[in-house]
Amino acid sequence: MMITAKLLLHCPDKPGILADVTDFITVNKGNIVYLDQYVDRVENIFFMRIEWELECFLIPREKIEDYFRTLYAQKYEMDFQLYFSDVKPRMAIFVSKMSHCLFDMLARYTAGEWNVEIPLIVSNHPDLQHVAERFGIPFHLFPITKETKEEQERKELELLKKHRITFIVLARYMQVLSERIIDAYPDKIINIHHSFLPAFVGARPYHAAFERGVKIIGATSHYVTTELDAGPIIEQDVVRITHKDAIEDLINKGKDLEKIVLSRAVQKHIERKILAYKNKTVIFS
Amino acid sequence: MMITAKLLLHCPDKPGILADVTDFITVNKGNIVYLDQYVDRVENIFFMRIEWELECFLIPREKIEDYFRTLYAQKYEMDFQLYFSDVKPRMAIFVSKMSHCLFDMLARYTAGEWNVEIPLIVSNHPDLQHVAERFGIPFHLFPITKETKEEQERKELELLKKHRITFIVLARYMQVLSERIIDAYPDKIINIHHSFLPAFVGARPYHAAFERGVKIIGATSHYVTTELDAGPIIEQDVVRITHKDAIEDLINKGKDLEKIVLSRAVQKHIERKILAYKNKTVIFS
Amino acid sequence: MMITAKLLLHCPDKPGILADVTDFITVNKGNIVYLDQYVDRVENIFFMRIEWELECFLIPREKIEDYFRTLYAQKYEMDFQLYFSDVKPRMAIFVSKMSHCLFDMLARYTAGEWNVEIPLIVSNHPDLQHVAERFGIPFHLFPITKETKEEQERKELELLKKHRITFIVLARYMQVLSERIIDAYPDKIINIHHSFLPAFVGARPYHAAFERGVKIIGATSHYVTTELDAGPIIEQDVVRITHKDAIEDLINKGKDLEKIVLSRAVQKHIERKILAYKNKTVIFS
Amino acid sequence: MMITAKLLLHCPDKPGILADVTDFITVNKGNIVYLDQYVDRVENIFFMRIEWELECFLIPREKIEDYFRTLYAQKYEMDFQLYFSDVKPRMAIFVSKMSHCLFDMLARYTAGEWNVEIPLIVSNHPDLQHVAERFGIPFHLFPITKETKEEQERKELELLKKHRITFIVLARYMQVLSERIIDAYPDKIINIHHSFLPAFVGARPYHAAFERGVKIIGATSHYVTTELDAGPIIEQDVVRITHKDAIEDLINKGKDLEKIVLSRAVQKHIERKILAYKNKTVIFS
Repeated sequence: MMITAKLLLHCPDKPGILADVTDFITVNKGNIVYLDQYVDRVENIFFMRIEWELECFLIPREKIEDYFRTLYAQKYEMDFQLYFSDVKPRMAIFVSKMSHCLFDMLARYTAGEWNVEIPLIVSNHPDLQHVAERFGIPFHLFPITKETKEEQERKELELLKKHRITFIVLARYMQVLSERIIDAYPDKIINIHHSFLPAFVGARPYHAAFERGVKIIGATSHYVTTELDAGPIIEQDVVRITHKDAIEDLINKGKDLEKIVLSRAVQKHIERKILAYKNKTVIFS
Repeated sequence: MMITAKLLLHCPDKPGILADVTDFITVNKGNIVYLDQYVDRVENIFFMRIEWELECFLIPREKIEDYFRTLYAQKYEMDFQLYFSDVKPRMAIFVSKMSHCLFDMLARYTAGEWNVEIPLIVSNHPDLQHVAERFGIPFHLFPITKETKEEQERKELELLKKHRITFIVLARYMQVLSERIIDAYPDKIINIHHSFLPAFVGARPYHAAFERGVKIIGATSHYVTTELDAGPIIEQDVVRITHKDAIEDLINKGKDLEKIVLSRAVQKHIERKILAYKNKTVIFS
Repeated sequence: MMITAKLLLHCPDKPGILADVTDFITVNKGNIVYLDQYVDRVENIFFMRIEWELECFLIPREKIEDYFRTLYAQKYEMDFQLYFSDVKPRMAIFVSKMSHCLFDMLARYTAGEWNVEIPLIVSNHPDLQHVAERFGIPFHLFPITKETKEEQERKELELLKKHRITFIVLARYMQVLSERIIDAYPDKIINIHHSFLPAFVGARPYHAAFERGVKIIGATSHYVTTELDAGPIIEQDVVRITHKDAIEDLINKGKDLEKIVLSRAVQKHIERKILAYKNKTVIFS
Repeated sequence: MMITAKLLLHCPDKPGILADVTDFITVNKGNIVYLDQYVDRVENIFFMRIEWELECFLIPREKIEDYFRTLYAQKYEMDFQLYFSDVKPRMAIFVSKMSHCLFDMLARYTAGEWNVEIPLIVSNHPDLQHVAERFGIPFHLFPITKETKEEQERKELELLKKHRITFIVLARYMQVLSERIIDAYPDKIINIHHSFLPAFVGARPYHAAFERGVKIIGATSHYVTTELDAGPIIEQDVVRITHKDAIEDLINKGKDLEKIVLSRAVQKHIERKILAYKNKTVIFS
């Protein structure tokens, strides 16, 4: 596999951006292997993801960001992110007591499906330590009470920084994160909520779904913001139920949804295919 | 096709109900062609739908209801409904300006897919008169303002009674019915709401879905109760969208959902396969 | 609505195509309102769809095709198609006896959902004449026997040419078209097959699906080629069934699938969003 | 949890079966906690699954089978199976090189979701030994060549018998089982095929799907019979793809389908909710 650079950007739409950016790469002998762009015609915003091979690229990789900023980002008032395919994102998983999402992600990781490092698992309960051990991932227990929450989260943040964690996945972590952590990882914390948001925000969504008598249940993965279950949605899916399904059936059917919907979101994040913007996401192809 | 009787019932669950009811039919030489039952183990309620051919049935059809009430309904404290396959339900369609659900239902009706009569269409706007005329269904215009609503609904009710309407379908009827009509047709008014309830209750759900940035939109058919969009859900379905879909795309994709979800509900109602109970529905197979 | 030009093209992938084509439009003061491109990295083919407003475009619309061919198509060995938004495609519908797809398309047409003309309906049976009449579309009956097929199809072709038909939709037309018609409309005849192709090719797919005991049935819309049910697939969808569904249930559930899957394909075709290539389709967003 | 008996049966449909069977249980003081029945009106076959608590049941559990056979099975020419909820089925998993289905099942097993024993894993390749070890399940390697197949399968059968294996799951086991094993486990070997059967039978279905240009891919779990990929289908599901998906994308998207579709089938089998009949399955609710 060739090493590639991945560039995600958005800016006010104007004629010439696409030509300018592709020119920048081809003139400097980069071989474009991916390009997807999208214009929000309501907000008049241009979004783009482009990926090219670095092998023959004339600009040294450590200078690409600087050149691009100087030559194009200023001109077009761009926000942009630059990634390299040989630099793996570093992911921390937060869990509590339910294992299905954790197992699903660690299985993918172990099978080599994801281009990611998982240096650690954080939990507020000891229940899933055995899962971490099966896969040889360090497990850090931070029990949390009302009194200890601030102190524990401070320690968690230190641990995350020490391990240079770049994004966090809440795999049915049953504890609301405080702003301190959320602000440290903007659009970098992925949560799975076990309902079809915005229906059934908050606790016990399957019970609420059962009460309401819905015929379909869902799961939603989203970036965490300070407003509960209200951050930019990455992925959703649903499964059909009937009047015969008891709450336990909803919970069981929901587990499969949750793990698939969460893993799809994590995969897109790892592949650098998500651009969060104005509480929504652009998901590149 | 043989003429059949269809019996729907529910009652507190006890041993022997199923055997008693099937006995009642077979002993009297009825040939059972359908049976589905379900026990809600939380509420301890027994639900049943059974259908049998009347040809050799020893009890005259006009006396079945009386016999069944006397022999079983009292004993088991049953609520039950009895229908005959040669008595078609009589359906009124209420519309406003959007034609997709109306066209879909009239196409099925005209093709003979539904065992129903549609004696009339009611509207608060003249826009869809041409659709009614294409299919030869009388179209009754009742323009509604705040001032005229009570009087107009009174006239609508008279019209419905005169035509012996047994159930009403709101096919994107953009007017809230008042209690007078709702109370006259309990669990007999089917509405289509253009969202995945309980998400996006009320007006302009596609705009709200667009604002929230969901990745899937839905439609919900339900029986109308006095609380807006909160009645027993009959059927739901969803379709995937992306960030590329503008509000108009949501509206267009939603139309297909709406008409299919509404028609499925109407078909189940016509077939006498729905039992509404405690703000939920049991949908027999 | 502004008048736009829509350009679809494909060619061997090379650096600079995208920049060249977008330059061609922006330099000549065309306002790009849509752009989607895709590179098949296996075959090394570049595909593109671009749409721009003509109002300020410096090249007169009747000369665009010529200029584009001279300046770019030759250079890049492009195949391209150019359409204008104010020139409606002209669609003929072929039917036999089943009305659901026909009703669905005519309802959309009548509601103004589709930017298309439907000058005529062709049928080999008289059954659906009443549908054509309800919507005021001329109905042409061409009964077909083994002996008359060649002559009838010759007449059909004449009729199609006389009415400048640009594409044909087979809405459950139960007669195999001969090569003469297929060759006259390459990638311009859309069929709906009532199975999940390539499963259950040919006649009576619901019966075959029932026999096989599948748990999901499907429908497939595709362009017609001379090999039966083997042309480029445009759209597919499925619906879940159970052991309780008899063949008639499959047929009924399938009808909803068929009409939605067919209409989605027709809509994409009308919007000029399909590019057929090597027995596959590229469906632009 | 109370211990229950689960009875599955089918026989020619006659009046009185349902009443007789429910009577048998209630008269003997069994508390029915589940009942589902279905009549195939084409073949005139009655299918039933009934479950009752044993606590107060008057017939000793070791005599139930004998009593039921004598009193009812002979009278109605029934085929029936009787299970007890405290007797776990014993499952062997056969794998080759791909880990996703294996991980998914072992995660469920470890989390206690399934009422099953997994005494062993069989493989024809050593690749997944590490997975077995992570979960502490004995891993038995049986490399297979054309020459050794008969001998190795004989040993496998011995191993299965020694461990009293009641059913086998082929979790992407890339080796066709010979009749000897299939005959030893009729309707007791569950396979996952990575296509929407009957489309793309045999090897490399994703490659075939890519070639055909389908817009949806699927997975199918079925009981293994001696005809390849032709046994009774238990469960199927699909996922949407586009022209942008390369073969590797199909394979990756397919993995999620495969593991979910396989696990659903295994779960239904463990719960004794499947009745195979005439190359189809009845799946009780």
